[in-house]
Amino acid sequence: MKSTLTDFPSKMNALVLTEYDKNPEIQKVDVPEPSKGEVLVKMDSSPVNPSDVMFLRGLYAKKKLPVVPGFEGSGIVIATGNDFFAKRLLGKKVACFAPMDGNGTWAEFMLTSYTQAVPLNKNMDMEQASMLLVNPLSAMAMVKMAKKAKYNAIANTAAASALGQMLNLMCLDENIPVVNIVRREEQVTLLKGQGTKYILDSSAVDFQSEMKALFKKLKVGAAFDAISGESASNLLEALPKGGEVIIYGSLSQEEIKTDPRSYIFQGKKITGFWLSEWIRHQNILKLISSFKKIQKFLTNKHKTNIDKRVSLREAVKGIEGYMDKMTSGKVLIKPWSN
Amino acid sequence: MKSTLTDFPSKMNALVLTEYDKNPEIQKVDVPEPSKGEVLVKMDSSPVNPSDVMFLRGLYAKKKLPVVPGFEGSGIVIATGNDFFAKRLLGKKVACFAPMDGNGTWAEFMLTSYTQAVPLNKNMDMEQASMLLVNPLSAMAMVKMAKKAKYNAIANTAAASALGQMLNLMCLDENIPVVNIVRREEQVTLLKGQGTKYILDSSAVDFQSEMKALFKKLKVGAAFDAISGESASNLLEALPKGGEVIIYGSLSQEEIKTDPRSYIFQGKKITGFWLSEWIRHQNILKLISSFKKIQKFLTNKHKTNIDKRVSLREAVKGIEGYMDKMTSGKVLIKPWSN
Repeated sequence: MKSTLTDFPSKMNALVLTEYDKNPEIQKVDVPEPSKGEVLVKMDSSPVNPSDVMFLRGLYAKKKLPVVPGFEGSGIVIATGNDFFAKRLLGKKVACFAPMDGNGTWAEFMLTSYTQAVPLNKNMDMEQASMLLVNPLSAMAMVKMAKKAKYNAIANTAAASALGQMLNLMCLDENIPVVNIVRREEQVTLLKGQGTKYILDSSAVDFQSEMKALFKKLKVGAAFDAISGESASNLLEALPKGGEVIIYGSLSQEEIKTDPRSYIFQGKKITGFWLSEWIRHQNILKLISSFKKIQKFLTNKHKTNIDKRVSLREAVKGIEGYMDKMTSGKVLIKPWSN
Repeated sequence: MKSTLTDFPSKMNALVLTEYDKNPEIQKVDVPEPSKGEVLVKMDSSPVNPSDVMFLRGLYAKKKLPVVPGFEGSGIVIATGNDFFAKRLLGKKVACFAPMDGNGTWAEFMLTSYTQAVPLNKNMDMEQASMLLVNPLSAMAMVKMAKKAKYNAIANTAAASALGQMLNLMCLDENIPVVNIVRREEQVTLLKGQGTKYILDSSAVDFQSEMKALFKKLKVGAAFDAISGESASNLLEALPKGGEVIIYGSLSQEEIKTDPRSYIFQGKKITGFWLSEWIRHQNILKLISSFKKIQKFLTNKHKTNIDKRVSLREAVKGIEGYMDKMTSGKVLIKPWSN
């Protein structure tokens, strides 16, 4: 039993990952049919996020292969299960998450739970909407964590990323100082251009001592780290007593080496943050109301820069080049373009 | 102004550390006079704890040198400041902590705050009393931490130590299963002889997989680690999702290498425990009442094994040999013996 808005084909084009750390390939696959509680989304756009790149490399929580990658996107719900909650979304424009275990957003259609699809405000741009979940919710989670722990200030690495820029905006709104740590001079320039107050370049000679002094001055309580390896070690060393390094990415793919005395005598700690897990522990109603605020906030104040739009066929190349271009803007996958 | 029980000499023998990572030496130094809030203890006994060894090596929170080492001991209060709280202890047998910044217990007399000296039950043995603070309070703190976090079970390394044995006793009383991790076959035998239920030998071939299986079965929530280095890395890897490694020592003197994915996707964390810091955050009245319970508990159920009694002059040798003999029993320093 299903409810449909329009007829849809039985086959579709999709990017399919058959082996980790290999390029995904284009395949013709069945368009799935929604059961109770499910919605079928005709995809409009889907970004390539750092978490996607980590997933392709097998460095993220793994799914059963073969699988369609892509964690978030935007589109229109064209069919649903025949139940109240799913049917309410029929015909709606949505931002959507891939299901925890199944196929993702890098295809012409995606099947997901109605809880993973959020209706959009009418004036929301569909391309911007495709990036409305992972980064804004991550930034929101970070702000909530900082407020809950009553940290005076926070730090963030890979801070010129879309997530980093969003975090700055939200923290400005909440009056929480953010130390932005970047790896290149042009990223300093980019953030300065946005009026960012505290920026450190980790390639600078005095980086470690400057970081330590700034952390002390601002009483930084937590440092969010997207890089791991030496970046995490340096943050733990630089934080004042009681400081927390919160790992949310491992762009360096390197292990983290730490001095045991940081934990024993200085009360420091290392913890982690993963959006999928964080969401599971939130109150859904509160989350939806926060999400509405985020939409308004981002519609008014912030557009994520889009560097390139690619078809499924071009996407493989887009993904390869993605890691080098992190700062210039997002790569968006448009499954219906040629 | 001071109150005295008996006359005391103006000079005393003390072990003095003049440089970290060098042997302390015997010196004749002034016997200090108590001011308001202070008590002068004529020392009876003082143990050599792992924390003392780490302190001598410069691996513990540092004090200004030269300094008398020794964190805990027992003795009689023979002089006090002329104030109500200090004077109440005059003539009392006490277990005592060294002051945070000043000279410690490895001398004929020690000056400390009245808050660092706890009166003893009448039937308490003075040698056992000298070991009544660091290990019992540490074990008590660990039990409290485990209960507060609602951990089903815990693990501990260097588990054949006096602290480890005490932790087993207290956890038995609280119905918290403890996985005891030791490094040698004879330590397995020792703990088995005490009726200890869960023992793992880290020198065994299948250690890591056995540890993982046992942690899973018992739902171990936290692993207390005295060793750091590989020990801490292995614990973090072996713990179930959400698990916490709590570093309280670094006997290996090695850094801790960890996989960032443990933090991000498995919600694990590394934190630390330091008794001095933990005590600062406790309610003093509750702590004293707990301490009375500990005295009763230990008088009835547990005597720490004493391997050797040494004079100040013999102590240097005792300290050197201490690390190798951890399991056979404590080395006690007796400042008034020859």
